[in-house]
Amino acid sequence: MSVAQQMLESYPKSLGGVDREKLRACIDACYECAQACTACADACLSEDTAAGLAKCVRTNLDCADQCDTTGRVLSRHTGYDANMTRAILEACAQSCKACADECALHAEQYEHCRVCAEACRRCEMVCRELIASL
Amino acid sequence: MSVAQQMLESYPKSLGGVDREKLRACIDACYECAQACTACADACLSEDTAAGLAKCVRTNLDCADQCDTTGRVLSRHTGYDANMTRAILEACAQSCKACADECALHAEQYEHCRVCAEACRRCEMVCRELIASL
Amino acid sequence: MSVAQQMLESYPKSLGGVDREKLRACIDACYECAQACTACADACLSEDTAAGLAKCVRTNLDCADQCDTTGRVLSRHTGYDANMTRAILEACAQSCKACADECALHAEQYEHCRVCAEACRRCEMVCRELIASL
Amino acid sequence: MSVAQQMLESYPKSLGGVDREKLRACIDACYECAQACTACADACLSEDTAAGLAKCVRTNLDCADQCDTTGRVLSRHTGYDANMTRAILEACAQSCKACADECALHAEQYEHCRVCAEACRRCEMVCRELIASL
Repeated sequence: MSVAQQMLESYPKSLGGVDREKLRACIDACYECAQACTACADACLSEDTAAGLAKCVRTNLDCADQCDTTGRVLSRHTGYDANMTRAILEACAQSCKACADECALHAEQYEHCRVCAEACRRCEMVCRELIASL
Repeated sequence: MSVAQQMLESYPKSLGGVDREKLRACIDACYECAQACTACADACLSEDTAAGLAKCVRTNLDCADQCDTTGRVLSRHTGYDANMTRAILEACAQSCKACADECALHAEQYEHCRVCAEACRRCEMVCRELIASL
Repeated sequence: MSVAQQMLESYPKSLGGVDREKLRACIDACYECAQACTACADACLSEDTAAGLAKCVRTNLDCADQCDTTGRVLSRHTGYDANMTRAILEACAQSCKACADECALHAEQYEHCRVCAEACRRCEMVCRELIASL
Repeated sequence: MSVAQQMLESYPKSLGGVDREKLRACIDACYECAQACTACADACLSEDTAAGLAKCVRTNLDCADQCDTTGRVLSRHTGYDANMTRAILEACAQSCKACADECALHAEQYEHCRVCAEACRRCEMVCRELIASL
C-alpha cells in the first residue's frame, strides 16, 4: 500500500461519497505528472535544440505547477468545496492535455517527451474520471 | 515601477494582444493573495478556536496553492496556450471566491480574515477581468 | 521502473558523477513526503483536538513546501550547482527531522502522524545519504 | 501598508523576539524574487540564444521554487522552529546568490537578467540580515 493510500485510509473523518479508488489514483497521477513535467522541462533545456523546444519547456512548467496544486488540493478532505475542486480538476485536465499534445510532437525524437506525454495523458484521464464521479 | 512590471516590460518578444495592465494587475494580485492566504491559514491555526476554523484553514491553503500556480503561469509568455490559461484563471477565480466567502464569515471577529477576504475578492475580480479580455 | 526513474534514464546529457540510485531514491522520497505532510496537516486539522495540533499542522506545511522544492531541484540536472543543491538538501533534511520529531509525539494516538513520521524519517535519511555522496 | 504587513500586524499571538521589520522585508523580497525568477526563466527561454542560457533558466527555476517555499515558511508564526527556519533561510540565501551571480553574467545583454539579478541580490541580503537577527 503506497504512502498516499495509507494517508487516505488514516483520515479520521468521513470522506463523504467520494470514489476512494479514483481519488487515490488521481493523487498519485498528479504527483507523478508534476515530477515528470519538471524533469522533461529540464531535459528539453539540455538538448542542443533547446530554442526549438521553448514551447515544450513552458508547457511542462505550467503543467508541473498545476499538477502540484491539484495533488495538494486532492490530499485535503476537510471542509470540501465541490465547485473549487471541480474547477481545479478542470484546469489540471486542460494543462495535462496541452502538455501531452505538445510532448507528443517530440515523442519520437526524445524519450523524455515520450515518457512525459504518457504521464500527462494518464493524469488527464484520471482527472476527468474523478470529475465525472463527483 | 514594481519588479513584476519591470519584468513584463523587459520580455524580449511580443506579448500578443494581451491587455498589459490587466495582466500586470493579475500577476500582482495572485502573489499578494497567495501570501495573504498562507498567513491567514497560520493565524487561524493560532486562534484558540482553531478547531472551529478548520474549513477556513483548508480553503486558505487551497487558495494559496492555486494563486501561486496562477501567478507563475501568468508570469510566462512564451508559447502561450489560451485554453490552458483560461482554465487556470477560472480555477483561480473560483478558489478566490470560495476563500473570500469563507473568510468573510469571520471578518468581524478576526482582522486577519478581514484582510485576507479583501485580498481574495480583489484577486477574483482581476482574474475575471483578465479572462474577459482574453 | 517508476516514471521518475524513466525520466532520469532519458536525460540526454551526462549526470556527472552523481550516484544515480541515491538521486532517484531522494527524488521519490521528496515527492512522497510532500504528499504525506500535506495530507497529515489536513488530517490533524480534522481532529477534534485540532487546536492542540497547531504546531504539528504548521511543521507539516513547512515540510511539504520544502520537500516539494527539493524534489523539483533534484529533478533538474542542467547547469548543476553543488553549493545550492547542498544547501537545499540540508534545509530539506532539517525540515524532515523537525516534522518527524513532531509527528512522532502523536504517532501512538494518530495513525496519520505515524505514517507521516515514517515518510519524513525516510526522506531525511536519503537526503543525508545524497549529501554525503555529493 | 502592504497586505503582507497587514497580515503580520493581525497575527493574534506573540511573534516572539523576531525583528518585525526584517521579517516583513524578507517575506516581501521572497515573493518578489520568486516572481522575478519565474519571469526571467521564461524571458531567457524566448531569446533566440535560449540554448546558451540553459544554466540561467535552470538556476532561475530553482531560485523561484526556494524563494516561494521560504516566503511561505516566513508567513507562518505558529509553532516556530528556529533550526528549520535558519536552514531554509540559508538555502534561500544560497539560491539567490547563485541566481544573482548567473543573471549578472547576462545583465548587460538582457534587461530581464539585470532586473532579476537585482531582485536576487536584495533577497539574499535580507535573508542574511534575518538570519543574523534570529
